[in-house]
Amino acid sequence: MSVQSYLQDKSKVIDTYLESLFTQGEVPQQNLYHAAKYSLLAGGKRLRPALAIATAEAFGCDESKVLRTACAIEMIHTYSLIHDDLPCMDDDDFRRGKPTLHKVFPESHAVLAGDFLLTHAFHLVASDPHLSDSQKVSLISLLSSSAGDVGMIGGQIMDIEAEGKAVDLKTLETIHSNKTGAMITASIETGAIIAGIEDKYIKQLREFGQNIGLAFQVIDDILDVTSSQEELGKTSASDIINNKSTYVSLMGVDEARQKAQDLLISAKGILEELPLQTAYLNDIADYVVSRSH
Amino acid sequence: MSVQSYLQDKSKVIDTYLESLFTQGEVPQQNLYHAAKYSLLAGGKRLRPALAIATAEAFGCDESKVLRTACAIEMIHTYSLIHDDLPCMDDDDFRRGKPTLHKVFPESHAVLAGDFLLTHAFHLVASDPHLSDSQKVSLISLLSSSAGDVGMIGGQIMDIEAEGKAVDLKTLETIHSNKTGAMITASIETGAIIAGIEDKYIKQLREFGQNIGLAFQVIDDILDVTSSQEELGKTSASDIINNKSTYVSLMGVDEARQKAQDLLISAKGILEELPLQTAYLNDIADYVVSRSH
Repeated sequence: MSVQSYLQDKSKVIDTYLESLFTQGEVPQQNLYHAAKYSLLAGGKRLRPALAIATAEAFGCDESKVLRTACAIEMIHTYSLIHDDLPCMDDDDFRRGKPTLHKVFPESHAVLAGDFLLTHAFHLVASDPHLSDSQKVSLISLLSSSAGDVGMIGGQIMDIEAEGKAVDLKTLETIHSNKTGAMITASIETGAIIAGIEDKYIKQLREFGQNIGLAFQVIDDILDVTSSQEELGKTSASDIINNKSTYVSLMGVDEARQKAQDLLISAKGILEELPLQTAYLNDIADYVVSRSH
Repeated sequence: MSVQSYLQDKSKVIDTYLESLFTQGEVPQQNLYHAAKYSLLAGGKRLRPALAIATAEAFGCDESKVLRTACAIEMIHTYSLIHDDLPCMDDDDFRRGKPTLHKVFPESHAVLAGDFLLTHAFHLVASDPHLSDSQKVSLISLLSSSAGDVGMIGGQIMDIEAEGKAVDLKTLETIHSNKTGAMITASIETGAIIAGIEDKYIKQLREFGQNIGLAFQVIDDILDVTSSQEELGKTSASDIINNKSTYVSLMGVDEARQKAQDLLISAKGILEELPLQTAYLNDIADYVVSRSH
């Protein structure tokens, strides 16, 4: 199976699971569910949950064991996009090809739907019947630090504070390894924890994650200036509009492309040392760098 | 020891613990910590963590075992206040006697500090060295549902959507048992889980929590119209400003006071049936109804 078909297959399974959540019908909090589902089912790439599943499968663990936690990760990702798009943050009007949540629902509902998705992600993991208590605790500890001050939220604060300032490459890398890299790495580690693999491999997988996480961001920066809003599904040239330093603004498109290639080679080198049973992690790394949106 | 001294003692222990968190000095995300601490250390009543500790102590469990999770609950409470005060929500300028977070820091930092406190609360519980994995999972499951769609956030959505509408007493009770009651009840249940008490008592403690949770809200509604901003530490008459139905607007002050008394009597009746080793839960129930801010 090609990596495109593999990712399409996983997206379908993930979407079906996400669609099955909170379908309580007419309840007083129904608009919370409608708002959360509007963003959750807007058709993202599902890269993070796919990485969790692909990692688990690469070590012989069945998709069914990791699906629920993988979807919890997608909920954390979606909440971060909802809050990031708010008027007081990046003030974005489009996301995943649709108007952002606060353009369709009241802004209060966007704040609360984000809060809910984050909260419910931890509930999904804590109540996952496929996991042992020890696995649940490891996963919640991992996800709450990767999504928190030493990860995603920390990166978002740095990103906002860097707007309009001259930022060097090292600072840019710190921002992105926190803002984007931490949750991509955590997705891979999630698959490894659920598959129950040895600690020594987890360390290597983390390095793999850091490389493709950064490559993902470099490509994002390139696509922001080379693609149209239609292709991206979100406002293009938004980094220029928000006066943000990017790999492209600091290195130019060609050098940025080279940087992404170098990161890809490092990432694939790490995988070669691991006893993987499938090649999809390798193929997803290729996809991250070759993607067009 | 009087209940006032007991609550003051607990507040000190809780404040000292909260102050000890995230003191990493000069780090790129330091303004996230400053923002979070601004609200976290603004001197709230600490009712929820005190209830968790008092419940555990009433069953012979030491304060030191429950302190960290109790502080996690206070972080969830504080995050909810920060987001609730945002311009797109209640748009409040004062809280706990100080300007609200978004009046002192950029609004983006208020959103992210709230997100961080919620995320970090789960991290604190998942990494608490005093708890077994099974206790951690029970607590995270409890807190994520009580703070989520079937609790606090669900109640906030209902509350916002009820603004400006005629609401009956039954609806008002549903709103408040979700928005306020769920986390107050969860605080009590937290103490019970950490103390390791029998399930049959947990059911009774939950009923106790529902009664004092509702009594707390009835008193809040009364204080909103009978106290000054100075006494409350937040904008007074805010329910009238926000066009919200309250126990006072539906029943009048006298009947609302009677309702709080009835709830108090029910709550104290439940406690009489429990094998408690201290009377502080009983005294805190009295305090909830007799408090002046």
